[in-house]
Amino acid sequence: MEMSIPESIQDLLLGKNFAHVATINPDGSPQVTPVWIDYDKAKNEILMNTAKGRKKTRNMFKGAKVAISIQDQNNPYRYLGIQGEIIDLTETGAKEHINKLSMKYMERAIYPLSEGEIRILIKIKPIYIHTMGN
Amino acid sequence: MEMSIPESIQDLLLGKNFAHVATINPDGSPQVTPVWIDYDKAKNEILMNTAKGRKKTRNMFKGAKVAISIQDQNNPYRYLGIQGEIIDLTETGAKEHINKLSMKYMERAIYPLSEGEIRILIKIKPIYIHTMGN
Repeated sequence: MEMSIPESIQDLLLGKNFAHVATINPDGSPQVTPVWIDYDKAKNEILMNTAKGRKKTRNMFKGAKVAISIQDQNNPYRYLGIQGEIIDLTETGAKEHINKLSMKYMERAIYPLSEGEIRILIKIKPIYIHTMGN
Repeated sequence: MEMSIPESIQDLLLGKNFAHVATINPDGSPQVTPVWIDYDKAKNEILMNTAKGRKKTRNMFKGAKVAISIQDQNNPYRYLGIQGEIIDLTETGAKEHINKLSMKYMERAIYPLSEGEIRILIKIKPIYIHTMGN
């Protein structure tokens, strides 16, 4: 099953808003962290970008369920919630993609990678969405 | 085990910032939603307030693990993450507490309850915290 993001609320993903992404720790407890977010409109995929070895990255694997919460930075009562499934994690294009996010969120064309930092592009299929104030 | 919230970052809980709270659905998938948040400094308890019957309320029971993510509304790179455990859910004082939150977030002394709405005050013990930009 898959659900599209309604046109009227796509700006929450495409704008400069942060997303809070929840994953499941190995012990079954939840984890949540703010991240930069992106949306591939043509493929209806939510895109995230993380560094190899981070705690939240370890919770992210193909088939893993994630939940995403995004508020409009100009109106916190305008909200998009997504429950989805990770369909791909790849190093391919991940560096270009973090530069795109860097431009969007920080107006810096090149994201400053740490020594040896490897970026991973994460693609999420939205399964269930809910909105508020829209 | 219990961890105190450092003095220097308590304003994230006491200020007008939203918290994104992650819980676990019955099927093991994560759920996350933005909420009003509060902190009882004397008892070192994170306080939330929800309505009986809501999805996230069904995921909240004594002993349930939750994760909380809070960004400073004036600087999203200043951040507090909490992993905690629900130690109490009670109707006692919950109505007074939602009015307190209403004042804090909306500058309205009385929270407009729906017909038959029952509020629940949720108390969370912080077990592990991490901060950023502080």
